[in-house]
Amino acid sequence: MAGGEAKKASTNANNRKKKEVKKETGLGLSSKKDDNFGEWYSEVVVSGELIEYYDISGCYILRPWTMSIWEIIQAFFDAEIKKMKIKNCYFPLFVSPGVLQKEKDHIEGFAPEVAWVTKSGQSDLDVPIAIRPTSETVMYPYFSKWIRGHRDLPLKLNQWCNVVRWEFSNPTPFIRSREFLWQEGHTAFATKEEANKEVLEILELYRRIYEDYLAIPVVKGKKSEHEKFAGGLYTTSVEAFIPHTGRGIQGATSHCLGQNFAKMFEINFENDKGEKAMVWQNSWAYSTRTIGVMVMVHGDDKGLVLPPKIAAVQVIVIPVPYKDADTKGIFDACDATVKALNESGFRAESDFRDNYSPGWKYSHWEMKGVPLRIEIGPKDLANDQVRAVRRDNSAKSDIPRAGLVEQVKDMLDDIQQSLFDVAKQNRDACVQVARTWDEFMEALNQKKMILAPWCEEEEVEKDVKARTKGEIGAAKTLCSPFEQPALDEGTLCFASGKPAKKWTYWGRSY
Amino acid sequence: MAGGEAKKASTNANNRKKKEVKKETGLGLSSKKDDNFGEWYSEVVVSGELIEYYDISGCYILRPWTMSIWEIIQAFFDAEIKKMKIKNCYFPLFVSPGVLQKEKDHIEGFAPEVAWVTKSGQSDLDVPIAIRPTSETVMYPYFSKWIRGHRDLPLKLNQWCNVVRWEFSNPTPFIRSREFLWQEGHTAFATKEEANKEVLEILELYRRIYEDYLAIPVVKGKKSEHEKFAGGLYTTSVEAFIPHTGRGIQGATSHCLGQNFAKMFEINFENDKGEKAMVWQNSWAYSTRTIGVMVMVHGDDKGLVLPPKIAAVQVIVIPVPYKDADTKGIFDACDATVKALNESGFRAESDFRDNYSPGWKYSHWEMKGVPLRIEIGPKDLANDQVRAVRRDNSAKSDIPRAGLVEQVKDMLDDIQQSLFDVAKQNRDACVQVARTWDEFMEALNQKKMILAPWCEEEEVEKDVKARTKGEIGAAKTLCSPFEQPALDEGTLCFASGKPAKKWTYWGRSY
Repeated sequence: MAGGEAKKASTNANNRKKKEVKKETGLGLSSKKDDNFGEWYSEVVVSGELIEYYDISGCYILRPWTMSIWEIIQAFFDAEIKKMKIKNCYFPLFVSPGVLQKEKDHIEGFAPEVAWVTKSGQSDLDVPIAIRPTSETVMYPYFSKWIRGHRDLPLKLNQWCNVVRWEFSNPTPFIRSREFLWQEGHTAFATKEEANKEVLEILELYRRIYEDYLAIPVVKGKKSEHEKFAGGLYTTSVEAFIPHTGRGIQGATSHCLGQNFAKMFEINFENDKGEKAMVWQNSWAYSTRTIGVMVMVHGDDKGLVLPPKIAAVQVIVIPVPYKDADTKGIFDACDATVKALNESGFRAESDFRDNYSPGWKYSHWEMKGVPLRIEIGPKDLANDQVRAVRRDNSAKSDIPRAGLVEQVKDMLDDIQQSLFDVAKQNRDACVQVARTWDEFMEALNQKKMILAPWCEEEEVEKDVKARTKGEIGAAKTLCSPFEQPALDEGTLCFASGKPAKKWTYWGRSY
Repeated sequence: MAGGEAKKASTNANNRKKKEVKKETGLGLSSKKDDNFGEWYSEVVVSGELIEYYDISGCYILRPWTMSIWEIIQAFFDAEIKKMKIKNCYFPLFVSPGVLQKEKDHIEGFAPEVAWVTKSGQSDLDVPIAIRPTSETVMYPYFSKWIRGHRDLPLKLNQWCNVVRWEFSNPTPFIRSREFLWQEGHTAFATKEEANKEVLEILELYRRIYEDYLAIPVVKGKKSEHEKFAGGLYTTSVEAFIPHTGRGIQGATSHCLGQNFAKMFEINFENDKGEKAMVWQNSWAYSTRTIGVMVMVHGDDKGLVLPPKIAAVQVIVIPVPYKDADTKGIFDACDATVKALNESGFRAESDFRDNYSPGWKYSHWEMKGVPLRIEIGPKDLANDQVRAVRRDNSAKSDIPRAGLVEQVKDMLDDIQQSLFDVAKQNRDACVQVARTWDEFMEALNQKKMILAPWCEEEEVEKDVKARTKGEIGAAKTLCSPFEQPALDEGTLCFASGKPAKKWTYWGRSY
């Protein structure tokens, strides 16, 4: 960042005009979001300084501009789960093969993606050791050890860590990477009711991350049997949608594991009647994928568009000196503006760099997605005002310096809300009800998020997948939304013609 | 934890007396710190619920009681480095072999401990991939890419992550583990002066972690050429000492890397005169080892002793009901006490569990090292007071409930200071000046931290190591302290008889 040099910059201000302003190239994006979404995305995450590509495929460097977003969301979520008396812990990165393979369905789901350490230094290990793709099997042997009686329950743990899934298909920054950061919560309860309740409480926190922080509308719902977590009882998720690619994307998942893992790992307790019982377990996670969804939903042809709540810099203040105007006065006004905003709790910085033109700076901070730009030039100084330019809709307005803080607050609130509203409009415009196979295929070809009545049979889901298989991927269930439209008596499944049980979202997905 | 159940517990208070109080065994430690330090340490980290041993040797589970300490220190350090405009990032866990091997001295230092991933799923990887033992070689190719001109400097990054060093000798929780958590800072400057300055600023933060938070006295100094960071220019460290084992322990290190890595990774920039120049780099780290040092220094035969500043629970409030006394009144007083302390910013909890006796609870919270215990029984209730018992020195006092918050504040401050003072006395009592080889050997056999005049020749250091090699490890240099006693003209090296250049600390070490 370029702030903090205000004093020096301001003193040197009068020399500045004389210096040559560097002509930098390559600030724009060469691909457009509408024309080539994939290229646009790869470019915008790099040009917006979120990501640097790494020399190992599928691994990415998360730059400070990413980490600041991650830390803001983390601070929110961590505080909320602490209120729920969930405690942070840290389990090892490594899993021994015996433990990893204990839950059959689970390991079947993850085996192809597991990375194995077989050597240290020049020596072969006696037994290859796996790197965690997730930590159910890492943790649960110890749940078994720690849980004895009903007073040891609930046991509620969370960890912030990296996990590794050595996928080979289409690595994509944030969305599909071989290593990613996440939190994973693992909890055990005496009763199914408590587990069920927590599943939804966590899911609500995930909804708030997406809707309140990232300004992305999501659907809360239940995954199909086919799409649920490997080894779990049922999976709930928040599902987002990317209109440009017509793909759903699983935003975060909150699983009830039931008693499957408890059985395999012998997590038993003596209940309050003195009987032996098995615990009910949940696990839940969200990852750095959140940030990728945010880029896809809000970004435009000028670069990233960050919702104010998660932007490391909410307001960038740029001096616009002009010929013989009072340059020092302009720089001082910039300083005062940043100071006033910082003191009121806003994340504001100034860009006093003397080797870039104001125009270059506008483009630079637009590329990085800063929600609000404030420009201060001679005319603004004369009128005791600043010019504010919104990143989301380019709207310009002049703000009297007297009412600066309140107006900035209102504008940032408005940007946050407006980003959500626009994203919701776009998402809603993609939702298409389909009652027949023909309607379904037509909607799929139009890249819709399809709401269709379904018989809920796994064979039918597999069949739909097989029938829609093509170059750009098959359709699958996204979720059965908790908010179900009325399902009229006699409604039939769009695919099988059997009686429908649920309205379910279908579509291609990430 | 057992708090938050106050209302229910309080209502059920009168039933409680009738219930059978479970006799739990195994609360005490079977080894004594003075008798068998190693056993004592292994036991106390488990019984104090910091650690659970894991089924892969050298890997440990960090339980919530550990993570709360880690998070408190992390919050301090992270805020301080953010003030220094150091930004967090996250680089991949994996390193490709070519990059890892680029700096010769560096890889020589780490090669034997590197864990290699060679398989994913059932397939062999084309090229084995290393897991980071530290991230110099992971990051610096990108420093080279990002740094072009002097305006790109300084570049100051930090990451919080896990690293893996597959050591085979003596795995010890926190102190020597195959995976550990740390922060690693990596910075690049235009001038050596700036780099030098930051090395010391960071070292001062490390001193504050040890002395102000963990209440452990440390010596700031410079490592010898032999002991410095592999590939760096010079290494500074904070060095602690464990009197019970007579071993020094490197607490944290702040390295100036000079231009070695810049040369290998071609991290060049155009300076303000338009000339091509190489950057000056630092790297610095502290790890979960800090927590192990804290356990070793403060723990006693009753368990952990946590300094108040880093204790997840600073005050544990325990009801002591007695026969037909006003049990509800006692529980309410406990609730009110916790509430008053929490509202004043103290981390206080009550233990209302009805299946444990007060005595069991005393032992339990002593084992976990909670700095202050408050007991409330019928007599306390009658006198409108509470009984406070300090963990560090077992001192008991009665505190009128009117002045509770101020007195608790004073006591916690006093405990924090007193832990440091006692630790410093114990450490200082171990420091022994040795001017000759005989004095040196005598002091070494007495497990001292030896301050000796040294010629600073690497060959002499290697020779001392060779001559002191034995079952319990050789002596080596710990550091040359920045605070040097006067070195009188003509003082000779204790080992070589050549003219001495520096007073240097020597000893066995972890």
